Amino acid sequence: MPGSPCHADPMSDLNPATGPFEQTLRTKLPEAAFRALTPGYLEEPRGLFRGQGGLLVAPRSTEEVATVIRACATARVGVVPYGGGTGLVGGQVMPEGPAPVILSTERLTAIRALHPSENVLVAEAGVTLAEVQNAAEAADRLFPLSLASEGSCRIGGTLATNAGGVNVLRYGTARELCLGLEAVLPDGQVWHGLKRLRKDNTGYDLRDLLCGAEGTLGVITAASLRLFPRPASVGTALLVVPDPQAALDLLALAGSRLGGGVSAFELISGTGMGFLAETDCPTRAPFVTLPGWAVLIELGLGAGQDAEAELLNLFEAAQEAGLSSDGVIAQSEAQRAALWQMREEIPEANRRLGSVSSHDISLPLSVIPEFLRRAGEVVAGLGPFRVNAFGHLGDGNLHYNVFPPKGRGKAEFAGRRAEVAEAVYALVQDYDGSFSAEHGVGRLKVGDLERFGDPAKLAAMRAIKQALDPQGIMNPGAVLRA
Amino acid sequence: MPGSPCHADPMSDLNPATGPFEQTLRTKLPEAAFRALTPGYLEEPRGLFRGQGGLLVAPRSTEEVATVIRACATARVGVVPYGGGTGLVGGQVMPEGPAPVILSTERLTAIRALHPSENVLVAEAGVTLAEVQNAAEAADRLFPLSLASEGSCRIGGTLATNAGGVNVLRYGTARELCLGLEAVLPDGQVWHGLKRLRKDNTGYDLRDLLCGAEGTLGVITAASLRLFPRPASVGTALLVVPDPQAALDLLALAGSRLGGGVSAFELISGTGMGFLAETDCPTRAPFVTLPGWAVLIELGLGAGQDAEAELLNLFEAAQEAGLSSDGVIAQSEAQRAALWQMREEIPEANRRLGSVSSHDISLPLSVIPEFLRRAGEVVAGLGPFRVNAFGHLGDGNLHYNVFPPKGRGKAEFAGRRAEVAEAVYALVQDYDGSFSAEHGVGRLKVGDLERFGDPAKLAAMRAIKQALDPQGIMNPGAVLRA
Repeated sequence: MPGSPCHADPMSDLNPATGPFEQTLRTKLPEAAFRALTPGYLEEPRGLFRGQGGLLVAPRSTEEVATVIRACATARVGVVPYGGGTGLVGGQVMPEGPAPVILSTERLTAIRALHPSENVLVAEAGVTLAEVQNAAEAADRLFPLSLASEGSCRIGGTLATNAGGVNVLRYGTARELCLGLEAVLPDGQVWHGLKRLRKDNTGYDLRDLLCGAEGTLGVITAASLRLFPRPASVGTALLVVPDPQAALDLLALAGSRLGGGVSAFELISGTGMGFLAETDCPTRAPFVTLPGWAVLIELGLGAGQDAEAELLNLFEAAQEAGLSSDGVIAQSEAQRAALWQMREEIPEANRRLGSVSSHDISLPLSVIPEFLRRAGEVVAGLGPFRVNAFGHLGDGNLHYNVFPPKGRGKAEFAGRRAEVAEAVYALVQDYDGSFSAEHGVGRLKVGDLERFGDPAKLAAMRAIKQALDPQGIMNPGAVLRA
Repeated sequence: MPGSPCHADPMSDLNPATGPFEQTLRTKLPEAAFRALTPGYLEEPRGLFRGQGGLLVAPRSTEEVATVIRACATARVGVVPYGGGTGLVGGQVMPEGPAPVILSTERLTAIRALHPSENVLVAEAGVTLAEVQNAAEAADRLFPLSLASEGSCRIGGTLATNAGGVNVLRYGTARELCLGLEAVLPDGQVWHGLKRLRKDNTGYDLRDLLCGAEGTLGVITAASLRLFPRPASVGTALLVVPDPQAALDLLALAGSRLGGGVSAFELISGTGMGFLAETDCPTRAPFVTLPGWAVLIELGLGAGQDAEAELLNLFEAAQEAGLSSDGVIAQSEAQRAALWQMREEIPEANRRLGSVSSHDISLPLSVIPEFLRRAGEVVAGLGPFRVNAFGHLGDGNLHYNVFPPKGRGKAEFAGRRAEVAEAVYALVQDYDGSFSAEHGVGRLKVGDLERFGDPAKLAAMRAIKQALDPQGIMNPGAVLRA
């Protein structure tokens, strides 16, 4: 039942990872596995949560991870898996309760295998996403997951949170890029599931359950990942559109002309582009007068095709259809990078400005224009706010962020956050959308999940959690209330 | 622990769906929901299992399905979900134990919604796969799941078994084509999860858990499905290759030239082509002298591309590389259909001949040639057998089927089946393959799952089953021993 605690014994029945527990664990692992707990492990990027302390352990192998989990299971000590620490919903820090083991994957850094002819790469959980991308590139392959935090996030956490990014519309989310896992389950058993198979119907899909479980059902220690051919010809363009509906029509036009060749399709608002100058960010939108809306589109085409030429064709077709009036097609790698840099700086501009409330939402594509209109009205009714709506339009995921009026700070409106969030999420619910498209639940959205989650699904989740982690040691307080 | 019963109370603690239970259920559902139990509902295509009887119920709505499940949960009566009855591992019939409710989805036949601009179709569980394909086509879209049984299999069962088929290498398995589910869980609660969202990180991935759970964790009542653009230009060719390694090299060549344009890539053995004449099947391979191996390749390309021309280019490049010496490129729709008909008749030829043992396996792509060599040696060492190895090479899934020598029947070798299967599966295990690539576990492979499944995964599966279906009413005896 929604709201009921998952466990008969709540978090207070966990033991701290100090004293006798620590002493015992130190007899089971090499000295090198223990690290001084520096402040970074207790922080998360949004500053909403702070870890209260813990025993930092950085295992070097899956067997060492299993030793840690077994010890924690035996002693009923909480475990917070820690990857790159880049998660945006507080999944990586435990602010309350007895001090946990903070289990860092930073020493699980091997790329175990690379099978280019099979389009498979096997990496340990501590390998960063950028390292996976680079290893694939070195083998003339593409690992197409691409996020802002890719230099820091580690693949175990990336999978555990089912990260998304800019290429989901073509290649899928992290979960969809994973063929198999090796993981330590909450009782310390190791699941050796590192298959390199595209088809395997031998029992329940534990892989896809662990992907997105945010460390609450076990710790991913290694993963088999899907690789793809590198597109021979890549092109990027920033096209002005009159409104979000035109952006969707342009997406459909691009899809019908280019099929699977559209790798990214990002909606950018004039408001967001304006924030770049307002907050003194390095880049600027390449327009004298900022348009109301623009689309950043990237194509990845095969040998014998010319992405730049196709973008020009697309623009001309869009012009004829009244979908776009202006734009910039990158004519060099440097220009491509500049367009993406602008897109990537918008979240930085948002951070410098400081939002009243931010929402990582997804909606069925066809309702997005209507949602944006209604949400704009709702938010305007709540106060003199500005809205920056931008993001991965191609897969229905928008970052819908509400800001103070120009010249006024978010502190003035801090007390309005909950009300704004409630109004936005309620509208998202009306439109059968999601209150967390890619960031996950973590600790930040536990209440939102209880509020908006389907009751039968929540009951099933609690039953699964209780079954796999009856002592509630895995990332206590994340996803489900402890 | 492998081999231990999942439930404290085994199947014998279930009650039969007769007498008082039936009377009570008849007060809760309209008369039209009850059907006479005709023999078809107790049969499965391979004739290995036969249902022992039961109460046939065909609900008309999700609410009626929930009523049935609730009643069964209350009375501790088994439920066998029944879709098209086409499954190949005995998941649709319960040969032992108290008579179950046979819950047919045949009246859940609505296509609830079609959103072409979003590339989403929502169908109830009883809609056949062919009906889904046709509805998509009528909206100028493609639902790319394609199986031999598509005229009969119903989408609920297709998802519950995570069916594969010929297009997996490009479009993925059934699970990957599903965005959301509506399902009745074993306690009778309805999970309303029919999202049309590509990204939704709000809790555990119950959708992907139910897909492939073969009816043992709940009954799928409706699904949101992904649609794709219809390729503007489709081409099919049958190319002779000297050996399986050359087939893999040809696959790589096709991928590098055509990227995501390869929709199907099937390996066909000369042995299999020979079976067509041997068993008087209508079609013949289009070769005077049967080659040892051939590949059936299908391309689906965008507007402005010419699939036939690309196939010719591919063949010429393959010739230069020594990968192919001969072939047929279809020059008309009729010729395309004829090539596929030949491919589709090989399983019929297999059936007419009668195999000693059949194996639906998958292997990492790069080991397939070595596996085929070693397996051939192993099988030859067991007896004068013939091997027909064919199938979805593009995704690593082979149907590795062992036959008697020409002129002798399978009955003579019936006692050798277990030995042959054991030898083949042991070799598959050595190569990190799967003993059930697409058919699933059902009742047929429960023992194989216990034997070859990862112990930690099996323990987690049993815990999940116990958590979601503590009374063991859902498809008792399928996937996990009751």
